[in-house]
Amino acid sequence: MKTSPFNLNPSELAYVPFVSVDNMMRNVRTIGVEAFMRGLAGYIEEDFLRWERFDKKPRIPAHAPQGVIELMPTDDGEKFGFKYVNGHPGNTRDGLQTVTGFGVLSKLSTGYPVLLTEMTILTALRTAATSALAAKYLAPQGSTTMAVIGNGAQSDFQSLAFKDMLGITEIRAYDIEQEASVRLARNLANSGLNVTICKTPEDAIEGAQIITTVTADKKLATILTDNMVGSGVHINAIGGDCPGKTELHRDILLRSDIFVEFPEQTRIEGECQQLDPDHPVTELWQVYAGKAPGRTSRDQITLFDSVGFAIEDFAALRYVHDLLPTTGHFEKLDLLADPDDPRDLYGMVLRSGANGDNQAA
Amino acid sequence: MKTSPFNLNPSELAYVPFVSVDNMMRNVRTIGVEAFMRGLAGYIEEDFLRWERFDKKPRIPAHAPQGVIELMPTDDGEKFGFKYVNGHPGNTRDGLQTVTGFGVLSKLSTGYPVLLTEMTILTALRTAATSALAAKYLAPQGSTTMAVIGNGAQSDFQSLAFKDMLGITEIRAYDIEQEASVRLARNLANSGLNVTICKTPEDAIEGAQIITTVTADKKLATILTDNMVGSGVHINAIGGDCPGKTELHRDILLRSDIFVEFPEQTRIEGECQQLDPDHPVTELWQVYAGKAPGRTSRDQITLFDSVGFAIEDFAALRYVHDLLPTTGHFEKLDLLADPDDPRDLYGMVLRSGANGDNQAA
Repeated sequence: MKTSPFNLNPSELAYVPFVSVDNMMRNVRTIGVEAFMRGLAGYIEEDFLRWERFDKKPRIPAHAPQGVIELMPTDDGEKFGFKYVNGHPGNTRDGLQTVTGFGVLSKLSTGYPVLLTEMTILTALRTAATSALAAKYLAPQGSTTMAVIGNGAQSDFQSLAFKDMLGITEIRAYDIEQEASVRLARNLANSGLNVTICKTPEDAIEGAQIITTVTADKKLATILTDNMVGSGVHINAIGGDCPGKTELHRDILLRSDIFVEFPEQTRIEGECQQLDPDHPVTELWQVYAGKAPGRTSRDQITLFDSVGFAIEDFAALRYVHDLLPTTGHFEKLDLLADPDDPRDLYGMVLRSGANGDNQAA
Repeated sequence: MKTSPFNLNPSELAYVPFVSVDNMMRNVRTIGVEAFMRGLAGYIEEDFLRWERFDKKPRIPAHAPQGVIELMPTDDGEKFGFKYVNGHPGNTRDGLQTVTGFGVLSKLSTGYPVLLTEMTILTALRTAATSALAAKYLAPQGSTTMAVIGNGAQSDFQSLAFKDMLGITEIRAYDIEQEASVRLARNLANSGLNVTICKTPEDAIEGAQIITTVTADKKLATILTDNMVGSGVHINAIGGDCPGKTELHRDILLRSDIFVEFPEQTRIEGECQQLDPDHPVTELWQVYAGKAPGRTSRDQITLFDSVGFAIEDFAALRYVHDLLPTTGHFEKLDLLADPDDPRDLYGMVLRSGANGDNQAA
C-alpha cells in the first residue's frame, strides 16, 4: 500500500514499526557503529541544508523539582517527528538513567506513525555524528589528535565518529575520575585509535588539533581556562547544554568564532549563555549551504557550541526508518485501531471477544 | 522497586507497560464496556476536581493540506501525560482511519514512562464517559429517552454510557444514512436498550429528555434548528469539535445555558465559535466542585458543548494504568536503554553482540 512504510499487507496498515533497545543495538552492530554515525551525519547534513523548510517549534517542557520531561516536535512539511526526552540528575540513585528518550516519525499527509523507536542510544549516536559533521567544516585540515575531556557515555561515540569522519588517530583522554578514562580506553582497544590516559586537562590538550569537552557536571564549571587554549584549534563543546551548565571560560568564547545549531536555543542552553544576547554567532546550516564561511585561517579558534536540536533527532528518525527494510531489525506494534468499518469501532470491540476470552458478564 | 509501576524486577526497570489495540479490547471486555466507561468517568471527575493543579498547555499542531497531527500534553505535578492524535478526513479513501491516537503517561519525578497505550478506542470511551458525567449534573432528573443524531463510531459508546450512568432505556436514532442507524441498533441489540430508528431528526427528538448530536460532517451544518428544541432538554453536542464544524443553530445556543470543558479551547473549536467571544459559559469543573450551578430549573435548556480536553485523556491514561495490575492485559516494551553502568552506553552496545549475531566487520 502506498501509505505503508514497507510492503505490508492491507490488514497490517495498523501496525507501526518499532525499534526496541535490543533491536537498536542489532541495527548498530549490523551497520557498524562508525558507518551508522556516518550515515546519520549524512541525513543530518541533508536536513540542515533544508533548514528553511522546517517548522522549528520550541521544546515543550514539563518541570518537576527532580528534573524535566520535554517533547521536541518538528516537521518538514512531509514528515512529522518528535522526541520524548527526560533529564533527571538524581535518577542514578535509584538505579535509573538520568536521560532516556524515545521518538516517533509520522507521515504528515496521513497522520500515521511510521516509526516508534528508542532514542537513548540513537541520541548518543546523533550527537556524535552532529559534532563530527560540524568538525568536517571547522577543524584544521589534517587533524590527527583529539583531546577528550570528560570520559562518560558520550566520549566513546565522539571518539569513533571523529576517527571515521575526520581521520583522528590519537585520543588524549582526561576525566576527573580516572576509572572513566580506563573504561574509555578499554572500549576503544580494538577500534584502531590510540588512547592516552592523561592526568590533567592541560596534559590532554597537548598537541591536540581538536578539543572535545563533554563533562557531565551539572553546574557552571570551567573545564577549559583561557590560557590552556592555543590558536588554531577546533573546540567541540558538548557538555554545556542547559541553563546553568557550561564548561568553557568566557574569555575562550571571546577569542573564538562560534558556530551553533539554532541561536535562539543555544543562547539559553549553550556556552553562549555566558555572552551578550547579540554576540555574533554563525548558524551551521549556513556553513553547510555555503552561505557563511567555516574555518577561514590557520590561527582561528573555531568553537561548536553544541546543545542538540530537534532537526538532528528528525534526521536520526528518518535514517533509522530508511534502514529498517535492509536490516529487518524491528517489530510490528499493534498501536493503531483498524476496524473494517471506521464507523463501527464498538462493533470491533464487541466482535473481538467472539473467541470467548475474558468476556465480562 | 518504588519507581516501577508494578512489581517488576530491577532488571525490568527499562520496560514500559504497553497496551496494544488487542489488549485494550481485552481490557474493555474483561471490565465490561459500561463499567469501563463508569470507571473512566470517576477518574475524569476526580481530575476535573483537581482542575487548578493541572498545567493546561495548548495543543501543539503540525498542519498539512490533508489534516493535522497534534500533541496534547498536560501534567498534574506528579504525572505527565500526552496524547498523539491525527485528524485526516481523506484517509478513508486509502483504507486508513480518519483519527488515530496513542498516549504516554510518565512519572514526573523520574521522567520514566509508566504506560504507552493505543488511544483510538480509549478516546472513544473517554468521550462518552465525559458526556455522561456532564449529563449527570445537567440532564433532567429521571431522563429515560435519548435522541442520538448521527449514528457513527461514537454513537454506540454514548448510548451505553448514558444507559449505565443515567438510566436511559430508549434510544431514538437518526442518521442521514439509515444503514448507520441499523448498524447501531444491531450493536445495541442485547444491551438492554430499546432502539427506535427514526426517519427525521424531528422524529428522533420526539419525547427525548436528552439530545445527543454526534454527526461526522466536516463543515458548518445545522443538524438542530431552533424550533426543534423544546424547553427542559439537555443537549449533548459532541460533533462540533474544530473550527468550521458545528451542528446547532446559533439561536439554540442563545436560549441555552452552555457548559464547557476549557473555555479558551471551546470558543475556538466548539459550537461556541458561533457566539461572541465574551458570551457567558460555565466551566464544568466548577459545577462538579459545587462552585457553579448545573441545572437549576425544569424549563432550562442545558448544553454541553463538548470538544475533548487533554485532562480527560490524562484521566483515561491514569485509569488504564491503574487497571493493568488487575487485568494483566499488557505487554512489556523494551523502550528504555538500561546499561549496567550509565556511563557506558557504548559498552552496552559493544557487549550486546557477544553472542555473535549480526556483527559488523
